[in-house]
Amino acid sequence: MRALMLLSSALLLAAAPPTKPKTPTEIVAAAPANAWREIPADDVLVIELRNGGRIVIQLAPQFAPVHVANIRALAKGGWWTGASIYRVQDNYVVQWGNNESDKPLPKDVVAKPPAEYHRALKGLTVKPLGYADDYAPAAGFASGWPIGYDPKAGTANLTHCYGYVGVGRDLSPDTGTGGELYAVIGHAPRALDRNIAIVGRVIDGIERMSSLPRGTEALGFYKEASQNVPISSVRLASEIPAAERPIYQVMDTMGPTFANYLRVKANRKDDFFIRPAGGVDLCSVNVPVRRKPA
Amino acid sequence: MRALMLLSSALLLAAAPPTKPKTPTEIVAAAPANAWREIPADDVLVIELRNGGRIVIQLAPQFAPVHVANIRALAKGGWWTGASIYRVQDNYVVQWGNNESDKPLPKDVVAKPPAEYHRALKGLTVKPLGYADDYAPAAGFASGWPIGYDPKAGTANLTHCYGYVGVGRDLSPDTGTGGELYAVIGHAPRALDRNIAIVGRVIDGIERMSSLPRGTEALGFYKEASQNVPISSVRLASEIPAAERPIYQVMDTMGPTFANYLRVKANRKDDFFIRPAGGVDLCSVNVPVRRKPA
Repeated sequence: MRALMLLSSALLLAAAPPTKPKTPTEIVAAAPANAWREIPADDVLVIELRNGGRIVIQLAPQFAPVHVANIRALAKGGWWTGASIYRVQDNYVVQWGNNESDKPLPKDVVAKPPAEYHRALKGLTVKPLGYADDYAPAAGFASGWPIGYDPKAGTANLTHCYGYVGVGRDLSPDTGTGGELYAVIGHAPRALDRNIAIVGRVIDGIERMSSLPRGTEALGFYKEASQNVPISSVRLASEIPAAERPIYQVMDTMGPTFANYLRVKANRKDDFFIRPAGGVDLCSVNVPVRRKPA
Repeated sequence: MRALMLLSSALLLAAAPPTKPKTPTEIVAAAPANAWREIPADDVLVIELRNGGRIVIQLAPQFAPVHVANIRALAKGGWWTGASIYRVQDNYVVQWGNNESDKPLPKDVVAKPPAEYHRALKGLTVKPLGYADDYAPAAGFASGWPIGYDPKAGTANLTHCYGYVGVGRDLSPDTGTGGELYAVIGHAPRALDRNIAIVGRVIDGIERMSSLPRGTEALGFYKEASQNVPISSVRLASEIPAAERPIYQVMDTMGPTFANYLRVKANRKDDFFIRPAGGVDLCSVNVPVRRKPA
């Protein structure tokens, strides 16, 4: 009986809530190795700015395969050498590429890709957000990506969260090749969801884009070409010698660490927070991504 | 009969939808004079940066009266002369003030204001958003401001949308004097709602804050004081001679123009949009504010 009591005591202690609730950042820092998935080197696009800054994008071939294949071919063909960032619109997007020049596309680039604005829900394993979404019947996470989805229609789409990268296009039916890309640098412009192809997200260096001077022309285009921010190269990580290649990991969105992170994101009770929200919107969750530890 | 038919025809024509749906921007541009309300000069805070840039904030005395009274007293007392922007955290906030210095507060400043994190719903006339909110039982607009509200509890609060200005504070029960302020420069960090006092919003020049270099210390603080962005003055518009005083107007959120704007925001059908979202989140609505036309 005495042993049983001690055991119960120990269980009680083990089950007792921690005295100081963890922050989302602390949960990510303490995540075990098996909470992470390595991002394939063919899905990592490395942009080097002429000013020395590097911006890294994770591509999403699961959602926009033809556009992502185009982007890989554009990178391998050196199409962005001499390209630049030419549009910075506050609370909206940064855009780069060759800005309507008639630079010939490398072979293997599909000039008129299909409208990859959503995909089949089938084939995705979904962790539901658990809270309402204003832009889709439901929201959640699949393969490490935030998605809006429609169980009735059987469709799923990537969402315009901060740092997400889409394909610049003219009016429909043009879908853009992937040569002109933009990244979101403000409050999520979710009305663009399902109206444009999202091909990935910035996973390193977004601040090199978001802190650029805003363009003063309509839609944030720079007035003078001299204001453009020159890009010196855009490569896939798989093109970079292994010794120098940056390796990134994304948190497994089906695992228990992510579930805990999501729960705490919606219920902040750490020191600063007096009233937990009891909810969170999809674009405030920020799926954790990190450089692979040495 | 012929006359009646003609009349019906004319009514039909008048009721026909326009061939080209208006954009939100076009609705704002075409808003009649009576859709606008002038912002009182005592509610307009004008920040001049030493680099020549101006940032203008609309104060919200309806929501945080003690903090706003403090801010007016701090401005009149010249407390921010020699202050600076000392924190820029990507996708989060820009913060300014005298950064924990022991500069004495002007008289009339309440050193420990009450926690004005929400107010009574009573006394506000609310235009409901009409779509779900993840951070409050309901969301809408009152007196030109976006709000979360709780009809059962009878409370309403301002929300951390892009450009909204809150009062820096230490851990509870500290509420901040209003001397250290921050503005949101990323996706709306709505988890802060009801945990901190919001005192207004940037209505002009937010890009002068959002494009600043990000701080590299924890929480985006600048590493060296030399990186701080000096503020040359902070005045109420009412302190500026009438001839030079900037006058701003906010759209009446109870009027038909705003209702139309809100409807279109949730249902973009203009040229670029193929699939209207059929919804919009509170912080994507952006209550229109403009400089009063000459």
